[in-house]
Amino acid sequence: MSGIIGYIGKGEAFPVLLHGLNRFEFRGYDSVGTGTISNGEFEFHKHAGKLKDLKEKLGDNTPKGHIGIAHSRWATHGISNELNSHPHVSNSGKLAIVHKGIVENYASLKEKLVEEGYKFHTETDTEVLINWIEHIQKEGDLNLLEAIQVAMNQVVGAYSLIVIDKEENAMYAVRKGAQLVIGVDKDAYVVATDSAPLSTLTDEVIYMEEKDVYRLAHGEEIKVLNLDNITKTPIIEKLEEALETIEKDGYDHFMLKEIYEQPQMIIDSFRGRMNASEGWVRLGGVNEYRNKLNKAKRIIFGACGTSWHAALVGEYLIEELARIPVEVEYASEFRYRNPIIDGDDVFVAISQSGETADTIAAIELAKENQALIYGICNSVGSTISKMSHAGSYTHAGQEIGIASTKAFTTQVVILTLMALQLADYKGNLSKTQLNATLFELEQIPEKVRKILKLDDEIKAIAKEYHQANNFLFLGRGACYPIALEGALKLKEISYIHAEGYPAAEMKHGPIALIDENMPVVVVANNDSAYEKIVSNIQEVKARKGKVIAIVNEGDTVIKGIADHVIEIPATLEIFAPLVSVVPLQLLAYHIAVWRGADVDNPRNLTKSVTVE
Amino acid sequence: MSGIIGYIGKGEAFPVLLHGLNRFEFRGYDSVGTGTISNGEFEFHKHAGKLKDLKEKLGDNTPKGHIGIAHSRWATHGISNELNSHPHVSNSGKLAIVHKGIVENYASLKEKLVEEGYKFHTETDTEVLINWIEHIQKEGDLNLLEAIQVAMNQVVGAYSLIVIDKEENAMYAVRKGAQLVIGVDKDAYVVATDSAPLSTLTDEVIYMEEKDVYRLAHGEEIKVLNLDNITKTPIIEKLEEALETIEKDGYDHFMLKEIYEQPQMIIDSFRGRMNASEGWVRLGGVNEYRNKLNKAKRIIFGACGTSWHAALVGEYLIEELARIPVEVEYASEFRYRNPIIDGDDVFVAISQSGETADTIAAIELAKENQALIYGICNSVGSTISKMSHAGSYTHAGQEIGIASTKAFTTQVVILTLMALQLADYKGNLSKTQLNATLFELEQIPEKVRKILKLDDEIKAIAKEYHQANNFLFLGRGACYPIALEGALKLKEISYIHAEGYPAAEMKHGPIALIDENMPVVVVANNDSAYEKIVSNIQEVKARKGKVIAIVNEGDTVIKGIADHVIEIPATLEIFAPLVSVVPLQLLAYHIAVWRGADVDNPRNLTKSVTVE
Repeated sequence: MSGIIGYIGKGEAFPVLLHGLNRFEFRGYDSVGTGTISNGEFEFHKHAGKLKDLKEKLGDNTPKGHIGIAHSRWATHGISNELNSHPHVSNSGKLAIVHKGIVENYASLKEKLVEEGYKFHTETDTEVLINWIEHIQKEGDLNLLEAIQVAMNQVVGAYSLIVIDKEENAMYAVRKGAQLVIGVDKDAYVVATDSAPLSTLTDEVIYMEEKDVYRLAHGEEIKVLNLDNITKTPIIEKLEEALETIEKDGYDHFMLKEIYEQPQMIIDSFRGRMNASEGWVRLGGVNEYRNKLNKAKRIIFGACGTSWHAALVGEYLIEELARIPVEVEYASEFRYRNPIIDGDDVFVAISQSGETADTIAAIELAKENQALIYGICNSVGSTISKMSHAGSYTHAGQEIGIASTKAFTTQVVILTLMALQLADYKGNLSKTQLNATLFELEQIPEKVRKILKLDDEIKAIAKEYHQANNFLFLGRGACYPIALEGALKLKEISYIHAEGYPAAEMKHGPIALIDENMPVVVVANNDSAYEKIVSNIQEVKARKGKVIAIVNEGDTVIKGIADHVIEIPATLEIFAPLVSVVPLQLLAYHIAVWRGADVDNPRNLTKSVTVE
Repeated sequence: MSGIIGYIGKGEAFPVLLHGLNRFEFRGYDSVGTGTISNGEFEFHKHAGKLKDLKEKLGDNTPKGHIGIAHSRWATHGISNELNSHPHVSNSGKLAIVHKGIVENYASLKEKLVEEGYKFHTETDTEVLINWIEHIQKEGDLNLLEAIQVAMNQVVGAYSLIVIDKEENAMYAVRKGAQLVIGVDKDAYVVATDSAPLSTLTDEVIYMEEKDVYRLAHGEEIKVLNLDNITKTPIIEKLEEALETIEKDGYDHFMLKEIYEQPQMIIDSFRGRMNASEGWVRLGGVNEYRNKLNKAKRIIFGACGTSWHAALVGEYLIEELARIPVEVEYASEFRYRNPIIDGDDVFVAISQSGETADTIAAIELAKENQALIYGICNSVGSTISKMSHAGSYTHAGQEIGIASTKAFTTQVVILTLMALQLADYKGNLSKTQLNATLFELEQIPEKVRKILKLDDEIKAIAKEYHQANNFLFLGRGACYPIALEGALKLKEISYIHAEGYPAAEMKHGPIALIDENMPVVVVANNDSAYEKIVSNIQEVKARKGKVIAIVNEGDTVIKGIADHVIEIPATLEIFAPLVSVVPLQLLAYHIAVWRGADVDNPRNLTKSVTVE
């Protein structure tokens, strides 16, 4: 996802901008650009590709100047190329902008500007934005702060932006729907999408509030206007988060490191929240809203991508154990409906980053309808965690690999605890059942460790199939979402078209795809539909598909039919998803590596999707 | 969709009648009946259900005789039972008839017959017809050929019929508005609704002309009178059409024929169930269980494959209009869970054939849990229709193409009516809104006809992409299921790996698949998320994907971005799924044809999945 950064101060702008872009790298991007002012003139550098290539290109000829802005872009409008890279400049050549997010009404604004004689050199909404500001400024003879305030009232969308004027020693920043943080140092201001680029520079920050427009000038007082034209006073806070040094710990990729961290992160996520020998489970948030949750008419999950798969597992667990009806919604779809939700419902939002734009918008809608909001996030202090009435953090630690792994398993841990706690409140579980279940949960990290030892075996299977163009993943019950997740991992990092299906649904259409070139991964470690899944495997084999099955240790039936079996330790049915996803993560990882793909930075993807 | 057949000759009549009924099977039917003459007495067999059940019932005791008539009946309105099945017999017991079509003035004829002392055992117009012939014969002391000629001059309607007299070795046939063909063999005559049952018996046929009455007797010359009492000479021709062509009405494939039948089948499915000018909508089943449905805590849909996609559209419509929470389940998954469902819930089962094994099992489970069962099927008298407390038939006629098309659109029509009726009960719609919505529904068949005229344009697009290995289909809101359905059609008949996604979800993973080789079909004819879907298209184009968009006529924005647009008539948001699926059906069809695939018999698939 895009990141923007701006610097104004006594020092050189460019090194700070580079440092910031570097910190954004984990967000994913396809192009970068910088703009600095020196002697009243702009100097721009744009590059479609990685930051290090830009650095190499520049060598020692780094641009000078005490003011600058920069951008790392994840293309939403227009192909990724240097022309479309930020910063963009206004028609007069005076104003430059970097921008993150989407302008929804850019087409109509552009039309008006074209009528006024404005020319456009790119397909971007960003170029429309800077010219719209210029147009408003000229038309109303306003100063730039006023012009931005007026212009932004007419721009529809969720975005943040930084503007500089080559004739003025100042920098302007707007937050509308996308976070911006200002680092305050005695000699400089740095504005950025998040605090990652700031932490090594200063520990004093301003978290810009929604709809605020800032004017920052070195040696001058900060001016703040909100979009309603009310002057505000900025609040300076201490930056408390320490930025951990991120290393791969000897692993080839962050993704692999994170797959291997799962036993520990699963422990971290349940530790202190349950006790097997004493037979209790307690998530603080669930406890706090115990009555409301107990009486919930429906629990509605809203999530995207991998988190949506975790929600599907949650649906299964909560319905099975707590007997509360659950509905799982794509957050992006929920928000554009007129959903049936009210004060008797609970809305559970799941997001690793806690910044997923679609999920945030869905929460807002659920909140308007009086639902209780329960957030399950990994990033402490994230927007979603702040918006929620209650919630639980997954303790997965920072996840850098763009393909989510440990965030998923820890989300499933939290959802399992939630289901057990609600079931316990309702008296659906005997003391013995609860104890036994929690005892088994305590064994899961060790079972995952055993699965990780199958790495070489999985690597060999991956080698055999890494040139396949297509994959199907099948599962049943709580392992159907695992089939979806296994397919998504493969899509994300290997660019193989992989699709997940409930195993029995295959015969209603997708079975037409199966021939001798189609590998089919079957998750068959849950007991309840074992015989049916054996039939499904036979259906695939009858059409000459290649079957790779995840089975429980000691399985003999499937072993006799499938082309490959990956034997994993048996567990209770409700924990089957938690263990069976791990071999699928490894399979996707190794296939991607065999294909020579850039595992940690897959094309087109970004870690946290903060545009809608 | 009825079919009639008659035999007279040296051989046994019954096997020929059975063969004929078998050939009619593609027309669909819900009851069959036969009548043969042996030793001057009639022997009748009637069965409400499938032909094979009749065969089983008879075993080796098949009726004997060298003369016989038979009928297969497809009830679109009203019940099918043995009483109403053909053949029907005259009061004297001498004459028997099978008849296809409608007698418009049967009420007045019946009145006169009742005055004359005739008794009636059924409500059918057919029984009136045979007695009217008997009455004319007796009154005028005419031979049967003359009597039929006179009687038919007084009967208003479009029909064809075959009559036999148990005391005479002859068979009579009349064509008036509905085709009849006579197969001529040296040893026998066979009369039938079309040449399908004849083609394996003889290649010499007489295509009966309008208003002709035939007398066929073995070893005697054929006599032909027309209704104006003029004697004619029959013309014997060579049967040239292949059987398949006859059944396909000139289309290359059943699937294409069925796609083109949709305007009529949509009309058949709403006709009599709503009235736009009077502003009412009434599905009998919904009316019958009005209170239960009105108070439903949740409506749970259970279905598989294409029907599951219809259920997703139904979810959107019912939640949006009737404000009742809806959950859509894969029938195959539902049945292996311990689902949360009780007497306050309604379980809606959707299945074209009414014989889908997984759906039947899901109904059993829902029934055990006291839920009201509502069936939506196409096959009258199918297992699901019998298991349901209430239900509505789609009036799609027999669907032969394995890839379902008209069954889907008519399912959506029924679900739309259901949503509107429930919304009306709840007072969620003003009279004006309801009228306007129903008025627009009446326009849909004409709009679908317009879309069918885009066939050549779609064929050209199909040609361009028919070698693609993968496709993505994107949609939002009620058109997200249409994206799924479009992808399923392509999977089923072209074996291309196609996958549907909610458009906004793409950026959470599948976008990694997009490069210059990936065609992306975007359903963009629903207005509510138009700007968002424009952004989604931009995201695809930014990664060089090829975009084929379904848009409303006159769209300019997407036209400027997409590689191809298919412009279809605009309609209300709730009808967007109903119209946008049609171009996707054509696209899948033409791609499969360009690839040389066997459209009507795709590999690995079966029409109705009656195994689990």
